[in-house]
Amino acid sequence: MKQNVAKNIITAAAPLIYRQGFHRTGLKEILDAAEVPKGSFYFYFKSKEDFGLALIDHYAQALSENVSLKGAAGDASALRRLRKAFETHRDIRASEGCEGGCPLGNLAQEMSDLSARMRERLQQALGSIGSGIASLLREAQGQGDIPKSLDPDQTAGFILDAWEGALLRMKTEKNVEPLDRFLDFVFGKILT
Amino acid sequence: MKQNVAKNIITAAAPLIYRQGFHRTGLKEILDAAEVPKGSFYFYFKSKEDFGLALIDHYAQALSENVSLKGAAGDASALRRLRKAFETHRDIRASEGCEGGCPLGNLAQEMSDLSARMRERLQQALGSIGSGIASLLREAQGQGDIPKSLDPDQTAGFILDAWEGALLRMKTEKNVEPLDRFLDFVFGKILT
Repeated sequence: MKQNVAKNIITAAAPLIYRQGFHRTGLKEILDAAEVPKGSFYFYFKSKEDFGLALIDHYAQALSENVSLKGAAGDASALRRLRKAFETHRDIRASEGCEGGCPLGNLAQEMSDLSARMRERLQQALGSIGSGIASLLREAQGQGDIPKSLDPDQTAGFILDAWEGALLRMKTEKNVEPLDRFLDFVFGKILT
Repeated sequence: MKQNVAKNIITAAAPLIYRQGFHRTGLKEILDAAEVPKGSFYFYFKSKEDFGLALIDHYAQALSENVSLKGAAGDASALRRLRKAFETHRDIRASEGCEGGCPLGNLAQEMSDLSARMRERLQQALGSIGSGIASLLREAQGQGDIPKSLDPDQTAGFILDAWEGALLRMKTEKNVEPLDRFLDFVFGKILT
């Protein structure tokens, strides 16, 4: 029961914090959104920082589900599955008016210098996404679709960072051109 | 006189906001840092948003001075000047413990969805940095150092976004590996 309510609070708070930031979103606003009695926050979370850690886990899971390669799961080509994952993400961003950017990137920017525990959790979450990309790159190398000379882990790291930067720029430009540019350079130049 | 004090306030506030964010940094803290009497903020700025616009201009100017190609200004090769600019920036970040990330990127993340005026000013500032990179790429094309097939504006946009993403990851990883990876891919793969 307690765990379920905690999960509801996270789910209700996630879009607020995604849009307006971690610090800016107050406990009262979070509890109102979750329809949980005022003042009960510390019954569910030891601190706002602990809540932040749970929020990172929530975003990381949502991202791996949303951006998972479902859209092209039946495709044998790892390279096409990877591209499809980014294209799907681009389409979602376009449909949402290019707002928000990346929930993990936002927290990484806001909290990395302010909470060592959140920074470490974000490091793990981003590392895990990078590992997922690296696995696909290894598979694509095995399928002969990208050069064996590319280091899968370094390439995955560069791709993930470039994607975070493209999402940030999209948020400021309010169009998906940075994401299209990312697709062109990554799939037209880096992975060739 | 009034303009000078306003400039001092900006200069004193810039490192605070760079480290802890725009919203999180209160007017009292800003005035204390600038050693300006409490309550006088609105004598110098119409609103915190107007102050934010001046802050963006301040960061944009500081960046174009710091990251200007001074370090390699005597070098005839535009490609080497560009690389040197990023390497110098990498060394500064390393010496500062990988904190802070990019001051403009931070504000872009925090404020793009919350202030249309700050978003537009950030768009201009980032666009102007991108144009500077594009000019160097055109020069490098004229010098035969990078392929003429690359679109200078699109390539500059991708490079700037990838750099912002690398700075963000650096801030979370607390090491410059993402910046080194950026240098390897941009100068070893994109611009070849």
